[in-house]
Amino acid sequence: MSTPTTAPEPAPGDRRSPWSRTVRRTADGSLAVGGRDVRDIAAEHGTPVYVLDESDLRARARTFVTAFRDAFADLAGADVYYASKAFASVAVPRWVHEEGMHVDVSTGGELAVALRAGVPGQALALHGNNKSDAELERALRAGVGRIVLDSLGEVDRVADLAGRLGLRAPVMVRVTTGVHAGGHDYISTAHEDQKFGLSLAGGAARAAVDAVLARPELTLLGLHSHIGSQILDLSGFEVAAAALLRLRAEVADQTGTLMPELDLGGGYGISYTGADAPPAPDRVATTLADVVRRASAELGTPPPRVSVEPGRAVAGPAGLTLYRVGTVKPVVLDGGGERRYVSVDGGMSDNIRTALYDAEYTAALANRRSTAPAVLSRVVGKHCESGDIVVRDVLLPADVAPGDLLAVPATGAYGRSMASNYNLVPRPGVLAVRDGQSRFVVRPESEEDLLALDLG
Amino acid sequence: MSTPTTAPEPAPGDRRSPWSRTVRRTADGSLAVGGRDVRDIAAEHGTPVYVLDESDLRARARTFVTAFRDAFADLAGADVYYASKAFASVAVPRWVHEEGMHVDVSTGGELAVALRAGVPGQALALHGNNKSDAELERALRAGVGRIVLDSLGEVDRVADLAGRLGLRAPVMVRVTTGVHAGGHDYISTAHEDQKFGLSLAGGAARAAVDAVLARPELTLLGLHSHIGSQILDLSGFEVAAAALLRLRAEVADQTGTLMPELDLGGGYGISYTGADAPPAPDRVATTLADVVRRASAELGTPPPRVSVEPGRAVAGPAGLTLYRVGTVKPVVLDGGGERRYVSVDGGMSDNIRTALYDAEYTAALANRRSTAPAVLSRVVGKHCESGDIVVRDVLLPADVAPGDLLAVPATGAYGRSMASNYNLVPRPGVLAVRDGQSRFVVRPESEEDLLALDLG
Repeated sequence: MSTPTTAPEPAPGDRRSPWSRTVRRTADGSLAVGGRDVRDIAAEHGTPVYVLDESDLRARARTFVTAFRDAFADLAGADVYYASKAFASVAVPRWVHEEGMHVDVSTGGELAVALRAGVPGQALALHGNNKSDAELERALRAGVGRIVLDSLGEVDRVADLAGRLGLRAPVMVRVTTGVHAGGHDYISTAHEDQKFGLSLAGGAARAAVDAVLARPELTLLGLHSHIGSQILDLSGFEVAAAALLRLRAEVADQTGTLMPELDLGGGYGISYTGADAPPAPDRVATTLADVVRRASAELGTPPPRVSVEPGRAVAGPAGLTLYRVGTVKPVVLDGGGERRYVSVDGGMSDNIRTALYDAEYTAALANRRSTAPAVLSRVVGKHCESGDIVVRDVLLPADVAPGDLLAVPATGAYGRSMASNYNLVPRPGVLAVRDGQSRFVVRPESEEDLLALDLG
Repeated sequence: MSTPTTAPEPAPGDRRSPWSRTVRRTADGSLAVGGRDVRDIAAEHGTPVYVLDESDLRARARTFVTAFRDAFADLAGADVYYASKAFASVAVPRWVHEEGMHVDVSTGGELAVALRAGVPGQALALHGNNKSDAELERALRAGVGRIVLDSLGEVDRVADLAGRLGLRAPVMVRVTTGVHAGGHDYISTAHEDQKFGLSLAGGAARAAVDAVLARPELTLLGLHSHIGSQILDLSGFEVAAAALLRLRAEVADQTGTLMPELDLGGGYGISYTGADAPPAPDRVATTLADVVRRASAELGTPPPRVSVEPGRAVAGPAGLTLYRVGTVKPVVLDGGGERRYVSVDGGMSDNIRTALYDAEYTAALANRRSTAPAVLSRVVGKHCESGDIVVRDVLLPADVAPGDLLAVPATGAYGRSMASNYNLVPRPGVLAVRDGQSRFVVRPESEEDLLALDLG
């Protein structure tokens, strides 16, 4: 257990802050986001509710786009792809595309949402370790800018399909470099024991490149690598990028084909509790530009156009979940001391990350200021399961009581996108707020929605 | 890592078998369930699909009901409640009620489904650590047979509400005894660091009992305890039951009120891979009856009517998930050797338990027999996440290829009920099979269903 702390106060501009940038404490002591008081949000829209700070999300998208454009200006340029898996309702790919991002999709559903959002096919990348024929055909017909090939068998499948459709498919080859990163460190092995990609060390990546080059229906755009998630230390990216650039130079040398692009994936960490300082987009961009510049010079190959794929780093900090407190129960601990169990009206159905990844969150009393002493608390949900925990350890004011509102920051990514109907609890809506206005971009589910699937 | 094994062949009647009892190998070598060949199911209904063996589920319900009726015949009788959280579409509470079970619900959604299934209010129990006023009112109006009180504050809330509605509310008090069980063992502590219940050792349970007795709007039915989940060893139940019976006798002695009932919760384990022998319902029933008989005699109190709450043990083994194989990829491991990554057309969105609880499953080639050598395999999904694993370690025939069908048994509980739309993947339907007939009790979601919630 980490030492429990109180949620930090809103601090726009502080990279360590888990709050989106329009979150403020009002004169009354309540929180406001996007110019809307959380008390009004709860009164009008009910709880639990995901609140998405549109200005914040757009600003994060723009910051990435600008940082990469600037850092790669003297190289061959860069593109920033939004990873839909973090959270994609139609509004989100539309916003990020308006801010200059491209969009990653990995299923038919994500492709449909991106297209409905008005993102042109050319600005889309299709990922996936197990794409169906239907998904591939849909992507090709939509004219996606790239299909990231994930297995040797996929080379011929995509080539055959492109041939049947009379198209040429732009592809990348996903390479596993043995670099795994996450948090403050990375590890490096020869082989990766995971479902994605083709091994660099084992020769499968090179075999796939050769197979692509043998098929005239395919255009080989470049190599792709993704090294992990919630990454705070950038050195793993440098190692992986250097390895991919060496393979690119080797292929150019031996086949005469210099791949024009290089995708270094995503996985940039965010601040969940205020304890960690995630890497700023401009530092990510200059770090990656430096390694591309240096390695290209050493290898004597012109630098590629680079792409990256942030998802969490764009949507995560832009969202918070607003809950209403129900039962508050003190539990005496065996070693002495006490833990306050603060139950809220949601739980593991709207945020599975605490149970799934032992993820850390924080929570703040949101409807008022309190000067009561802070006590060791655990924010739990209403599900019929003892592992139904939202925030494992947090200090909350001792006077938190039924009817209070709690805000849990940094739930914009992997919150609604991984939500379930466990215990037949309808999923909360996603309320976009901006400049004092609010509207649901995903409406709250109703019991009728749940029962609509039930044929009795 | 456990030593990987091959999925056992169907063995109806074998308690170690993870397959539901109508699963057979056909002469062709394919699997059939409920008299339907999985090849036909896949062709007609698509994959992935949850297949629910109605006869098996009904038989498990009936077995529990009969076992408890018989074991407690010389005591004050027993009731068996189905825990809806395991899986509840309208069909399931209807089936289990037809077989003699009562039904546990813990949310408004579960209550709505049970009522729609035709289960009378009197046969329902309402659980939950954080019931809303709306849920309590709905339950009282439906005339539920019991409300399980989970905190001190709830005593007055329920009493006040019952008073306003002019009703008398039958309640139980959920007690934490310090006994935690799961798998082959149990532990015992003084205090329980969890959100549910009222502490026996700390005196909160007794305080709640006294508070209930002070409110004429409440009828105190008895004490309740739930000690864990996926329990294979029954000794934890004996310890918890004895503790509750002592508190019951103490309350009778000091207040003159002898509580007529005792609920010992659920949590009975099932076989997921064939490695474990779960306790048979008749052994569960006789074990619990023995401890109730013995403790009541020692305490000199008439035995209570006993209730238990299986969920997983009824629905879990009745379900299997049928997937179609896509990408098959060999990955060389660092220590030498190779792992076959077999990708299927579902994944962590339809079965989160492998990632969430490190749960073990097995998988069998379902559309044909194979004599190919068995190789170390991992069944993974199609989600954009390396933790998207369905079966961590299993031996599968080396010739498993794209287009083959895989069946994963024991997914009837906590499969569909915890499913998400991660990566915007529609959730599979639940196909009930029986005597050669099949019909969807929950229809498959479509992309349109997903987009219906999206307001753009």
